[in-house]
This record gives sequence, structure tokens and C-alpha cells, in this order.
Amino acid sequence: MTGVKAILFEDGKLHILDQTKLPLSEEYIEITTKEDIFEAIREMKVRGAPAIGVAAACGLYVSVKNFDENDIPRFKQKVRAVSKYIGTSRPTAVNLFWALRRMEERLTGFSGSVSEAKAVLKTEAQDIKEEDEQACLDMGKHGLTLLRPGMGILTHCNAGALAAARYGTCLSPIYLGTGQGYDFKVFADETRPALQGARLTAWELSKAGVDVTLICDNMASVVMKKGWIDAVLVGCDRMAANGDGANKIGTSAVAILAKEYGIPFYMFVPTSTIDMETETGENISIELRDGKEVSHMWYEKPMAPENIKVYNPSFDVTDNRYITAIITEKGVVYPPYKDNIRRLLEK
Amino acid sequence: MTGVKAILFEDGKLHILDQTKLPLSEEYIEITTKEDIFEAIREMKVRGAPAIGVAAACGLYVSVKNFDENDIPRFKQKVRAVSKYIGTSRPTAVNLFWALRRMEERLTGFSGSVSEAKAVLKTEAQDIKEEDEQACLDMGKHGLTLLRPGMGILTHCNAGALAAARYGTCLSPIYLGTGQGYDFKVFADETRPALQGARLTAWELSKAGVDVTLICDNMASVVMKKGWIDAVLVGCDRMAANGDGANKIGTSAVAILAKEYGIPFYMFVPTSTIDMETETGENISIELRDGKEVSHMWYEKPMAPENIKVYNPSFDVTDNRYITAIITEKGVVYPPYKDNIRRLLEK
Repeated sequence: MTGVKAILFEDGKLHILDQTKLPLSEEYIEITTKEDIFEAIREMKVRGAPAIGVAAACGLYVSVKNFDENDIPRFKQKVRAVSKYIGTSRPTAVNLFWALRRMEERLTGFSGSVSEAKAVLKTEAQDIKEEDEQACLDMGKHGLTLLRPGMGILTHCNAGALAAARYGTCLSPIYLGTGQGYDFKVFADETRPALQGARLTAWELSKAGVDVTLICDNMASVVMKKGWIDAVLVGCDRMAANGDGANKIGTSAVAILAKEYGIPFYMFVPTSTIDMETETGENISIELRDGKEVSHMWYEKPMAPENIKVYNPSFDVTDNRYITAIITEKGVVYPPYKDNIRRLLEK
Repeated sequence: MTGVKAILFEDGKLHILDQTKLPLSEEYIEITTKEDIFEAIREMKVRGAPAIGVAAACGLYVSVKNFDENDIPRFKQKVRAVSKYIGTSRPTAVNLFWALRRMEERLTGFSGSVSEAKAVLKTEAQDIKEEDEQACLDMGKHGLTLLRPGMGILTHCNAGALAAARYGTCLSPIYLGTGQGYDFKVFADETRPALQGARLTAWELSKAGVDVTLICDNMASVVMKKGWIDAVLVGCDRMAANGDGANKIGTSAVAILAKEYGIPFYMFVPTSTIDMETETGENISIELRDGKEVSHMWYEKPMAPENIKVYNPSFDVTDNRYITAIITEKGVVYPPYKDNIRRLLEK
């Protein structure tokens, strides 16, 4: 089982593993202000939908815990303002808004003292973190029922321990299975432009002793054609009510290839990632990031002509028809997704 | 029209534009020995199937032109040995073997003097180069009949002026159309790991005033889904007799996506790239290159864990069923390919 932790929240203090520094160095940075947490999310020092939610909740708490304010309505107002600010750090992962709303809602109707309110927020952030750990563990168990020893598995981006409070979403069954002697052969797409697959997935899997091979994103078709892939496992940043799932750019291509080669495509989606207010994938806001991430990031020298036009969407939407099953902490969901997701959430 | 030239062969001297230095600097290097040309091809200083063929032919000539040998059988034997050596530089592009064989065959039955033999080789190399230029121009004309002004075009890797003696294969119609006022919107896949799309295609197209946008390979699905792509144009490194085409790694994925989105997929294949001795794509030898190209190349710092396992095939095979049409210098070929390719070559 992996020991990697992206977020430390102990004694009311928040430390985040700076994932932009991986795999070269493991550096935890302390988050104490709303600007700190905003920047950490915006700059992808912490990333992955569940981890963003947990970090935002803990970050909201540490940003307000030292407010010198004794009037509870004014304190609540300040909390809402900070929450709103943190919520503008990135647009796509719904866990960000979900976690911040949960924090705010704990104060709705609350009439105790400011110091009691702070304690309530601390507990809520802690709960969100612990629930995420449990959800990842449960997703691992449900996901493992779909896998067999010796399987070849392709994953895209990083939906591992680094993307959640612990264990990860789609890598959780890999860790669980490996602990039980399943000898998976994992292929990790490097995931341009930010290389989460190369830097993060390859790092955390090899650290845990999992057999992992790094490939470029454009090699997924070849490893599938060779018969090396028995299942594709990916995470999700926001799922619409109809089962369309936004995830890291490139996911939809992997899903289409999997369909073409007859390989099951599983999307791991904690229920906190399901946005019932978004009807279909068409309505999901997709973040566009700086083109320099493509043309210059990581490079010693520019590897494209100066001032070249770049299109750099951070996510894409995988249509529900390409998704074989959705794995949540409450169980595995099959099509038709619209009805079955609603039923699952009513459980 | 583009003025870019990958290969200069004048007065019996060979200079090659070092494409590993692009887009930062334009440096021509002189090739005088068999080791020079071997390394230039192996290290991808010159790349692209047609350009490799032309460079190999010219490289063979400059490697043998100073042989101090007056005995014609011994000279021929030396030429064959040099040709064999150059032929081991890269395994996939068939133009390499085709061009070297053409050079060798010019000496079959030749009974003149050694200096006459050298002149024959020089003329043959010059002919190969000029025929390639003409073939590219003709492919451009045939390809342009499939395109309309204003079209959005996706291309993968570089099958442009840099990949041939001139004009390129799949970029040739872009240049021709642009000269006639067609306002194409070209999207260039960056093409990991060696980034030929970012470094070469984006460079030569923007230099020629073509509207080009750089994307990561994993964004092809999104630009297709958005309706921005009306046609996919790619080159080919070796086509089997049944129309299966090996091209730069990632091409097969683009072809599958194009099929899924209902977009025509055109492969540009000079007849020198068609290998009738290879029955299907299954029989094409695919070069595996050093994993460091994926994990370290171009990077200031390693972007993957040290010693991570990497799978790095340089090409993949696109099944003929994903190819809408094949564009050769002799015309456009539609399925069924096996019969229609044979018929074309008999013309």
C-alpha cells in the first residue's frame, strides 16, 4: 500500500506536497493564507479533483482561523468572502466548489461564538479529508472486483494517492490488488503538457513497487493493439448528471481508442465529483491554460517557434457512451447512467 | 510557397539542415563520409521518409566519390558495402532502402571506368532528389483537389518541406492552396517524444505565413469534437501492399479518432514509400528508440523518475480501413487498396 500523502492537516496546520517539484524533490509547503491556497491550487502544487476539494476545505480553515473578529455575522461574512476567492482558483473540478460549500453550510444557522465557529470549520475540514480517504479505499475495493491478477492496465494523468487525501481514486485498486499479490502491468501515459503521468503516476507507482511503464500519450493506441491492455482506469474532475465525465485533457481520446479495441474503460468518480446540477458534459466549464505550458514548460530551450499560437485546454469531456462503468465509493454504476447515478445518490 | 530546404546537393557536395537544432537555429552541416550520413539519419538530423531516401542517395555518393580505387569491380564492391552500412541507420522508412538500391542498381552491369561510375552515381542521386521534388509537387496538386478554402486541417509529425527534397508530402497541398488564397487553419500535433510537430511543422508553416496552432497530441480528440477539423493529412514511412501505413508514432490514434468523428483521413505516400514486398502492416519492422527520448530529451531536468521503464516505439501502423484515401504523385487511390495500389504502380 502506498504511503504517499499529498496533504497533511494536523493540529490545525496545513502542509501540501509541492507536486510541481516531483519527481526531483519531495517538498512540503505550509499554507497559512488564502493567497497561499489559491496559488497552490492555481499552480497545480496540489491537483486532482479530490485533493483540490480537501486542500480547499483545509485551506479555508487555515486562512480564517487567525481572523481577529468576535462578531459572528461578520466572521461568517469574511469566511464566505475567503471561500469565494479560493473558489476562483480553478474552474473545472467540482470538488473545489463542493468542499467550500460544505464548509460554508456548516456555519449556516450557526449562532455560537467565533472561536466555536472556527472549531466547527476545523472539524469539517478534517471530516472532508477523512471521508475522502475512506471513499478512496471503498473505490479501491469496488474497482478491484473488475480486475484480475496479471492484467495490463492503462492510466492517464494521475488519479493516485497524489490526487486525493490518500490511496487515490483509479490507482486505489492497483494498490489494493498489489497488496494481495496481483501482478498488474501498468502503462502510464505521460500526460502532456504538465506530465502528471510521467512525474506523478510513474513516481508513486514505482515507489510502491508496482510494475509501471511510461509511454507518450500518442502510444496508447499501440499498446492496446498489441493486446497489452485489459482495462483502462482513469479519474474524473467533474461528472455531469448523465454520466459524461470531464477529466484531464486526452482522456476522451483514450476512451475512444479503448472502445475501438474492445477494452473496458472505467472512470473512478467519488460522489463528491458528480455534479447533478450539470445536465451533460456540454455544460461543464473547461479551463484553458497558458500556451507556454505546451511550448516552454519543463524545457531547457523553447521547443516551438517563439509566439506560436497554442490551444491548451486542461480537460476534455468523455461522452458517457464510451464509459464501460463508473466506480464510486458507493459501488459500481453501469449504463443507463442518468437513472443509475440518480438512484445511487439516493442510497 | 515554402523556401525551406532540408537537403542541399550542389557541385557534388552535400549539406543537411540539422533538424535537431530547429526551431532555435538554422545550421547546415556538411556530409562527407559514410559515418556522417549514418549519424545524420540515426540522430534524426535529417528525417522524414522521402528526405531520408534523398539524403542516403546523396550521402552514398559523397562517401564514395573520393575512393582512391581504379578497379571497377573493387569500386562496386566498396559502394555496396557503404550502401549496406548506411542502410542500417534506421529500420522503418522504406525510402532508405529504395534509394540505396536504386544507386546500387545503376552500377549493375556497368563496365566503364571508376570515374565514370562516380559520375553515374552523382547523376542518380541528383535524379532521386529532383524526382522527389516533382513527386511532392504532384502530391500537392492531387491533395489539393480534396481540400476547400477555409478548411481546418490536423496534421501529425512533420511531412513537410523538411521531410522531403522540397514542399513536403502532406504539407505540399497546404503550401499550394495557401498560394492560391485558401485560408487553411492548420492544427499541428506536437508529436512526442521528438516534437517534430512543435519544432518543425509549426516552424515551417508559420514561416510560410500559414495559420497554424500548436496542440499536444492528446488534444486531437477535442479539436475534432469542436468541429474545427475537416480533414487529417499525414505522411507515411512505409506502406504495405495492402495499404496499411506505418508513420510516426501516434498516427494510428489520430486515424481512429478521425473515423469516430467522421473526418476524412488522408495519407500522403510517394510511390517510393510503397513496399510491395511487405504484404501487410504486421510485417513492417518498427524501430524502438531509447527511452531517454521520452524521460529526458529536451528537458532541463528529468521529468520522470530515474530509471523508469519506458516503451518508445518510433512508429505505428495505421490499418488500411482507417485511411480514407492515399495520395501519391500518380494520383489519389481509394479502397480497396490492395488492387488499386497494384494498378497504380503498373501505370
